[in-house]
Amino acid sequence: MFTLYEFSSSGNCYKLRLAMAQLGVAFNRIEKDITRGETRSADFLAINPNGRIPVLVTPQGNTLPESNAALWYLARDSHLMPANPFAQAQVLQWMFFEQYNHEPNIATSRYWIHVLGEQEKYAVPLKEKQQKGYDALAVMEQHLTEHPFFVDNTYSIADIALYAYTHVADQGGFSLEAYPAIRAWLERVAGQPGHVVMSA
Amino acid sequence: MFTLYEFSSSGNCYKLRLAMAQLGVAFNRIEKDITRGETRSADFLAINPNGRIPVLVTPQGNTLPESNAALWYLARDSHLMPANPFAQAQVLQWMFFEQYNHEPNIATSRYWIHVLGEQEKYAVPLKEKQQKGYDALAVMEQHLTEHPFFVDNTYSIADIALYAYTHVADQGGFSLEAYPAIRAWLERVAGQPGHVVMSA
Repeated sequence: MFTLYEFSSSGNCYKLRLAMAQLGVAFNRIEKDITRGETRSADFLAINPNGRIPVLVTPQGNTLPESNAALWYLARDSHLMPANPFAQAQVLQWMFFEQYNHEPNIATSRYWIHVLGEQEKYAVPLKEKQQKGYDALAVMEQHLTEHPFFVDNTYSIADIALYAYTHVADQGGFSLEAYPAIRAWLERVAGQPGHVVMSA
Repeated sequence: MFTLYEFSSSGNCYKLRLAMAQLGVAFNRIEKDITRGETRSADFLAINPNGRIPVLVTPQGNTLPESNAALWYLARDSHLMPANPFAQAQVLQWMFFEQYNHEPNIATSRYWIHVLGEQEKYAVPLKEKQQKGYDALAVMEQHLTEHPFFVDNTYSIADIALYAYTHVADQGGFSLEAYPAIRAWLERVAGQPGHVVMSA
């Protein structure tokens, strides 16, 4: 069986719970509270020297950090991954976009505001992250105006990766009011067979 | 033939030149000067709505942004990619680490100091990026103390992705003096067959 080291409130960890639910993959969960430094302990650094969750542990006992690498490993030969190699590269394109342009802005804002409750303390960096987060949402909105999903007109792990923090963007202070294509896409993703919610 | 939209001084673009040289893939180069806003023009935004280089264009005319997604596409069935699926996931793990923990700190510092020559203007954010950049280098050093390359003891696109900005980290104000395993790895990478230098 797989094991998932995770922090329940983390969208990066939710990506893997959602994918494993939709793939019918059984897994154990081990909670690590990042607000209490539990991913910086010597024990955890032996699992992931980068000190971050999630970490996926395979049934063979191999550890895999990085949410989107773990998504790729779980889904590589499944209905959550297109068959065509160029489409597979586009899935990775959107997952790298998610980790570079989206997550550092929208997830970090949500962490400061919603998880830590320290909006005032982080007022200055939040301002820059708001701008960059909206820039990322604008790129998504443009794409979703013309496409039902991110790659190949089909639900894939690219959608899962971007859904994780977009559907809770309000908790990071982002309004999706001006992004109708994103809101319609969020509903399509939530309507996929086997969908599970984040707070599960 | 492939086409590469790039900015010569960018390590993200160098990744693709290096991989294509080692794969024997012919390509045209189209220079876009990011310091003059050339990736924010309407023409370029039609190629990549995210306004960033590199963009790889396939012989079929399909465009692929994101350096590490393009690396994966070029190398997926080559000697630059391990055959085992878990090792392939580890290649992605290190490429996501590169884009999240390494590039935003080391490449951005280098851009401000070396490309723009504006070290004083960016003194405050540079301080935070120095700390986070050294944190990323420490993770690399620990891994390379025990392994000759990042995945499977073999040179792969994970090494190419991390080499791009590590070998010019000094231009971002980072000293590798305390990182002997990284320095030895840089020499191993530079000694690979078909290696080309960044300024080519």
